[in-house]
Amino acid sequence: MGFAMQHISSAELLAFEERYRARLVNSLSGFKSANLIGTVSTTDDFNLAIFSSVVHLGSSPALLGMVTRPVTVTRDTYKNIVDTGVYTVNHINSDIWQAAHQTSARYPAEVSEFEQTGLTPQLLSCSKAPFVKEANIKCAMRLLDVLPIKANDTKLIIGQIEDIFITKNVLNEDGYVDIQRAKSVAISALDSYHTTHALGRLAYAKPDQPTRLLNQLGDNAIE
Amino acid sequence: MGFAMQHISSAELLAFEERYRARLVNSLSGFKSANLIGTVSTTDDFNLAIFSSVVHLGSSPALLGMVTRPVTVTRDTYKNIVDTGVYTVNHINSDIWQAAHQTSARYPAEVSEFEQTGLTPQLLSCSKAPFVKEANIKCAMRLLDVLPIKANDTKLIIGQIEDIFITKNVLNEDGYVDIQRAKSVAISALDSYHTTHALGRLAYAKPDQPTRLLNQLGDNAIE
Repeated sequence: MGFAMQHISSAELLAFEERYRARLVNSLSGFKSANLIGTVSTTDDFNLAIFSSVVHLGSSPALLGMVTRPVTVTRDTYKNIVDTGVYTVNHINSDIWQAAHQTSARYPAEVSEFEQTGLTPQLLSCSKAPFVKEANIKCAMRLLDVLPIKANDTKLIIGQIEDIFITKNVLNEDGYVDIQRAKSVAISALDSYHTTHALGRLAYAKPDQPTRLLNQLGDNAIE
Repeated sequence: MGFAMQHISSAELLAFEERYRARLVNSLSGFKSANLIGTVSTTDDFNLAIFSSVVHLGSSPALLGMVTRPVTVTRDTYKNIVDTGVYTVNHINSDIWQAAHQTSARYPAEVSEFEQTGLTPQLLSCSKAPFVKEANIKCAMRLLDVLPIKANDTKLIIGQIEDIFITKNVLNEDGYVDIQRAKSVAISALDSYHTTHALGRLAYAKPDQPTRLLNQLGDNAIE
């Protein structure tokens, strides 16, 4: 190859021990979003689960997707979403990242992850599902569709953003939400959490113009 | 509400000017992965396009998903992937983030984004599609499936990871790839780029045990 890179072939990848492969492959998509999904069961039990697969699908209509796993604690989440049609998406921030991670433990369905982790359920009139009080950015979601992903027996849950709650002083004049200032974190692989440092915002790219820095973002977080 | 949050209702969201709404909604999923997708056309033209929607779907088999947009430069990418069945996923790092952003300009199909942005196409024997030489983490992908997302006329492209290339000194003993050390960046909203600072890795969460820090990651990047 002539350069300092490690090469892993598909045959080698297949032969790796399962946890090793899971860590490796989970690193390859790049940084992931870090969200807590709040749901309520038909018997009024609250559930809270960490997801690193929430992805932007479009802004008109405003849609988010997220991927279920075949066997995990997220089964409660999926059942609740299908049963009630609603859920909440709450950004994990650097004040609550350890409590957020703890929601991935396999608690029984009737045990509230809120109680176990010290996070505070917040009920607002716009949704039956609980929000996370400590989150600085949160959305009320309505289930639109579930797409089966046959390749690995997972599902893409598609939801429409209804109500949005954003802590003060992070929504900029042009609509940009300064999620770094709101202390939102990113995840890498299965278990690593990261705060961010802004390189900058770039102007809309045009073929006949060089890349242009729109503005430098500050590194100061909200109080 | 009794707390310092801005509330945006679904009716207000619908009424926003289009670009304002796009910036706002693109912030709400949290931090996004930052990847360059390399493809080749049936007439041997190289294409390179930035995607912020690459998402981990599973590790066994090793699958990545990514979302097309209805009308953008990514149409070349989609056509090439369907025509050839292969593509590459290349992490954007803090040495090439501005060049990577420039690939989003609407160049004609026969114009190579590599030439326009100064990024170097790299051909390896494992794929017909070009890699980005400057990327520290890259994967050869094989198209598995395309799921139509009817809610907004986009598509989820599902691909299997075949060969993996990782720059030296970032693959840890347990399979964790230190993508921060590899200088991978994260995106927020449409146009903001971020490096990261590691809070730490956490042990696998268990119901009867408190959250435990697995280890502190260093902040030093590769040379």
